[in-house]
Amino acid sequence: MSKRPLILVTNDDGITAPGVRSLIEVMNIIGDVVVVAPDSPQSGMGHAITVNSTLHLDKVNDDEATQAEYSCSGTPADCVKLGVREILDRRPDLCVSGINHGSNASINVIYSGTMSAAIEAGIEGIPAIGFSLCDYNWNANFEPCKSYVKTITENVLKHGLAPGTVLNVNFPNLEKKDIKGIKICRQAKANWVEEFDKRQNPYGKDYYWLTGKFVNLDKGEDTDEWALANGYVSIVPVQFDLTAHHSIQQLNTWNFNEE
Amino acid sequence: MSKRPLILVTNDDGITAPGVRSLIEVMNIIGDVVVVAPDSPQSGMGHAITVNSTLHLDKVNDDEATQAEYSCSGTPADCVKLGVREILDRRPDLCVSGINHGSNASINVIYSGTMSAAIEAGIEGIPAIGFSLCDYNWNANFEPCKSYVKTITENVLKHGLAPGTVLNVNFPNLEKKDIKGIKICRQAKANWVEEFDKRQNPYGKDYYWLTGKFVNLDKGEDTDEWALANGYVSIVPVQFDLTAHHSIQQLNTWNFNEE
Repeated sequence: MSKRPLILVTNDDGITAPGVRSLIEVMNIIGDVVVVAPDSPQSGMGHAITVNSTLHLDKVNDDEATQAEYSCSGTPADCVKLGVREILDRRPDLCVSGINHGSNASINVIYSGTMSAAIEAGIEGIPAIGFSLCDYNWNANFEPCKSYVKTITENVLKHGLAPGTVLNVNFPNLEKKDIKGIKICRQAKANWVEEFDKRQNPYGKDYYWLTGKFVNLDKGEDTDEWALANGYVSIVPVQFDLTAHHSIQQLNTWNFNEE
Repeated sequence: MSKRPLILVTNDDGITAPGVRSLIEVMNIIGDVVVVAPDSPQSGMGHAITVNSTLHLDKVNDDEATQAEYSCSGTPADCVKLGVREILDRRPDLCVSGINHGSNASINVIYSGTMSAAIEAGIEGIPAIGFSLCDYNWNANFEPCKSYVKTITENVLKHGLAPGTVLNVNFPNLEKKDIKGIKICRQAKANWVEEFDKRQNPYGKDYYWLTGKFVNLDKGEDTDEWALANGYVSIVPVQFDLTAHHSIQQLNTWNFNEE
């Protein structure tokens, strides 16, 4: 039996995306790899799961590959659920998701399929990391990320993660020599200001494309946005207990008996 | 000009669902109501947004209704974005989502379209509440919820919410007389244990249905699951800063320079 860690790899850009191929390459150095990834891009899917339709799973045959690969008709969260329950014969030691083509820093974590996969694994009690590169291009250069992916992954395998947390790792779009190192950060308080591009179809009916501008009003130097803008790899520990514990006391002062 | 609050109403079960009709009824007592809700059920959509396809918006004509209504081809989060940017001529004073047919307590908040709409409004700085009834039936009885919906909403309008928080309200599936009151809670540490129902299509190919069992190992009496099981309406203040602030110090002790 292998003593190498068992690593479940997924993403949200789809199984053929260059970002996940780079991630698989690094994971093959570290452990035994099984890939379960969407058969088509799932960006913006948030933490969606497939409850109203069926899921398909196809073994991808590639005789040259070290890793087993499955493409799945579902969302990134579905991929993790199926991987853990139906494909792997034991619990994985780690789940990694990405490398996403595009930033998942700041509020983007909420909309991120990449991070939803990591969070799904975290809910299952599996240490998990989501990796993203701040470059939306399909031909983005993932080379500078690789040594950092390896170091961060090895640290997670060595130290574990605090219960109820996963890591959100974002890479600045820089050459390796220009990356200054790694910073542990908090999620910046930023948001998207939507601008809908309103058009008319050939039959005169209006429709919309969602576009928008990212606005960061958070001046903190301990945020992921600051780190990325200043040449650092950002790591934010992310939790899925969404309780705003600090608000509980205030809410207890409200009068709910005035009906 | 009206001094009544402007209230944006949405949900994830679709604009025709009995749950949102009940919510509209209560909101019409409190303020001026505009409904922007999905044209079809969106359960399990998590915080999905529509970035890879177009969005359609249709004004629903109902001469008898007090409120303006729009049905939208997108997700609950899309509905909030479109409502705020394209439909309303001023910022709403409140956004309410639901009443969901089914629980969004505990870890369900992560998968919930209902709560994603409330969170989307929260990100926009709009006070927001998601309401859910622990009954998945289309014909669920929303009558017992109504006075609580009114009281909770009036409290939010009166006191506001702490910045960066929204409310996740769940109702036990009980007669009004059996509901014991309201409890402010934390999110229970529970999860779903998936069981995939594996089948074969008529052509011999496997496919899966996602099913599962909800498991709550959290023995706390301050959780939403405890409150609901004991006859209370649960309110959890929910935040969208996902940073696990307590983990930052530990991660800073890791050695990232060993590559």
